[in-house]
Amino acid sequence: MANPLIVDIHTHVYPPAYIDMLRARHKVPYIHDPSDGGPPRLIILSSDDDPNIPLDQRGRPVDSSYSDIKVKLDFMDKHGIDCSVISLANPWLDFIGEEQASEWAQKINNDLESTCAQVNSATATPDKLPRLFAFGTLPLGAPQQVAVADEVHRISALPHIRGVIMGTTGRGNGLDDPELEAVWGALQDTQLMLFLHPHYGLPDEAFGGPEIVRRYGHVLPLALGFPLETTIAIARMYLSGVFDRFPKLRILLAHSGGTLPFLAGRIESCIAHERTFKVNGGSVQGPQRGIWDVLKTNIYLDAVAYGTAGLKAAVEAGGGTTDRLLFGKMMSHCPPPMTFFNADNFEGTDHPFFPPLNEEDDKWTSVTTNYKAISAAFEGDEAVAAVLGGNAVRILNLK
Amino acid sequence: MANPLIVDIHTHVYPPAYIDMLRARHKVPYIHDPSDGGPPRLIILSSDDDPNIPLDQRGRPVDSSYSDIKVKLDFMDKHGIDCSVISLANPWLDFIGEEQASEWAQKINNDLESTCAQVNSATATPDKLPRLFAFGTLPLGAPQQVAVADEVHRISALPHIRGVIMGTTGRGNGLDDPELEAVWGALQDTQLMLFLHPHYGLPDEAFGGPEIVRRYGHVLPLALGFPLETTIAIARMYLSGVFDRFPKLRILLAHSGGTLPFLAGRIESCIAHERTFKVNGGSVQGPQRGIWDVLKTNIYLDAVAYGTAGLKAAVEAGGGTTDRLLFGKMMSHCPPPMTFFNADNFEGTDHPFFPPLNEEDDKWTSVTTNYKAISAAFEGDEAVAAVLGGNAVRILNLK
Repeated sequence: MANPLIVDIHTHVYPPAYIDMLRARHKVPYIHDPSDGGPPRLIILSSDDDPNIPLDQRGRPVDSSYSDIKVKLDFMDKHGIDCSVISLANPWLDFIGEEQASEWAQKINNDLESTCAQVNSATATPDKLPRLFAFGTLPLGAPQQVAVADEVHRISALPHIRGVIMGTTGRGNGLDDPELEAVWGALQDTQLMLFLHPHYGLPDEAFGGPEIVRRYGHVLPLALGFPLETTIAIARMYLSGVFDRFPKLRILLAHSGGTLPFLAGRIESCIAHERTFKVNGGSVQGPQRGIWDVLKTNIYLDAVAYGTAGLKAAVEAGGGTTDRLLFGKMMSHCPPPMTFFNADNFEGTDHPFFPPLNEEDDKWTSVTTNYKAISAAFEGDEAVAAVLGGNAVRILNLK
Repeated sequence: MANPLIVDIHTHVYPPAYIDMLRARHKVPYIHDPSDGGPPRLIILSSDDDPNIPLDQRGRPVDSSYSDIKVKLDFMDKHGIDCSVISLANPWLDFIGEEQASEWAQKINNDLESTCAQVNSATATPDKLPRLFAFGTLPLGAPQQVAVADEVHRISALPHIRGVIMGTTGRGNGLDDPELEAVWGALQDTQLMLFLHPHYGLPDEAFGGPEIVRRYGHVLPLALGFPLETTIAIARMYLSGVFDRFPKLRILLAHSGGTLPFLAGRIESCIAHERTFKVNGGSVQGPQRGIWDVLKTNIYLDAVAYGTAGLKAAVEAGGGTTDRLLFGKMMSHCPPPMTFFNADNFEGTDHPFFPPLNEEDDKWTSVTTNYKAISAAFEGDEAVAAVLGGNAVRILNLK
């Protein structure tokens, strides 16, 4: 296959202004500059903010690969990625309440927009895709939901914003919260894509308690918690009728939908047999549209499924076509362990966590590996090319 | 395809002695006989034992389809099931501590054995499979794990016992509990199959709290909680090295492995990048065998995946063959809603929850529907016949 277009829709940044804001904080989430002059460290979880751990070692380093767009571009060059749709990494702005929320959202979104504009202007090449687009961030902690909807409308006019990224808790009470109706309405009206991303949303008790979780490092919350969190979030959204009231919402689910492609049929069955719902004589409305209809109409998945079993289920869930799958990054084909833990690694390619290691000179190695994985799961060069980039260009109107 | 053998390995019973024992209890789990003379009701969860609900309406009815083996046989006849491997339904004996645990396990297992022996003797037909086999139950609350191992060894000599059923909590602390080592050893030594079955093991907080769970009836805990619980349980077992220490364990996972086929690659990736483990310089041993190796060597899945997406992922996880998939029952092809909720419905065919409804006279309808679903997912008559019965006969030595 001759050089298909490659678009990475799952790649995060921490703009400098965001890092400075976290640096000024002293409770989670906050950034601390270690005394040895190493990269600033982000303490993102309460469990990371452990007084038994020296402050210089808490959390995880956030180096220039997050905050310096040049490093992102170098990484894209090295790995043959034509275009990236960047998004703020967690915890986004979820921890900012009151009026400040909107101010920060505007600041971050304007930053993202101007970064894209500057990079694209400096790198413009005839007949090539612009290099950067962005998913914006929302002031979910604002006192009124209309403020969130207002920011959706505002950024829909920015030339490089193609959607918004959101965690699974929404305004704090999950995605079936009536406090999000205005936001769904704004997203439907503007047709901005909602990129739904997990963020340590399952309690330790789901895994047997904190001691069990600690025993296996980050494996249980990351390998199982992240996808389950996404699945629960979208299921609550579906059960509460959001897709009935906003039938044109567009949602991109991280990690190939968590486990939704595998469990959609089970959700369908349980609803059909649930006497709480009106259709079975109960008092609760229940969802009107079928889950497979929603999957084929409203849901898009990234191709971050770590293996052909998951990728094939994702294709089946989309109605048997690859039209709704977008290339993210594929962790299972990463080189061996990185030197420190970072949640982003688990989406895959972010420099410096996806280097060619002993193959420094072969800039195409990792991408070639991804080709192989995607080729194994999907039949035909056209399907592969669509997943790698064509679908993203079409679905997100990247031009 | 001419009448393939059909074996149902996911079908539950409550023997009369078990029901009587629950009837004598007054705290969860217990059985209450309603004053209207209707079937006894099983109050299985603390949340069902709500003082605001009249006692006669708490929990769920447990009619003769659970306790009368003749009703089970009628159901098998009606649906063309040649052979069933019956197992005690939840909550098994998990709530019985001390010495009584072993006494009850022996009683229930002897009951199961004699039921199988009597039925098979009464229905024996040359060149046909015996009609019944059983998975035994374990005294997991016994003071010493050796007592549990002793019961495994004891029942391995009973002619109709082919394995044991177990919930995800084991002896109360999950399946990575050192208190289970003797049990794993006994199961490996006897080569009895461990049928791992979920039982409301996720806390409500995983779904957003009790109010959210109640809002959607049983959909969240059943559609998502059950499979996630199974996945977490087997992941903990794997992470703690059980499959390294007991490489010949045989485990049958309910509901096509929960979500394990979809998430196995993600587990693999997260382990490879987890610095807690020795292989990455940490202090914890970590699993030595690969997850895909375990899936292809130790794990069997029932074909209760509610759709081709899940079934195909289950096949991929087994190494691309259908050799490790066993027919259970397929809920998504159930007729419309039953008149009351019962967890077992969600495995599918149990009479009276899987009747031909308006097609009372067509005893083959539901089985034909199952053929269609399995045929759609698997290629070739041989593969379909293997999943419907041939695999179970071979793997469980049903003769």
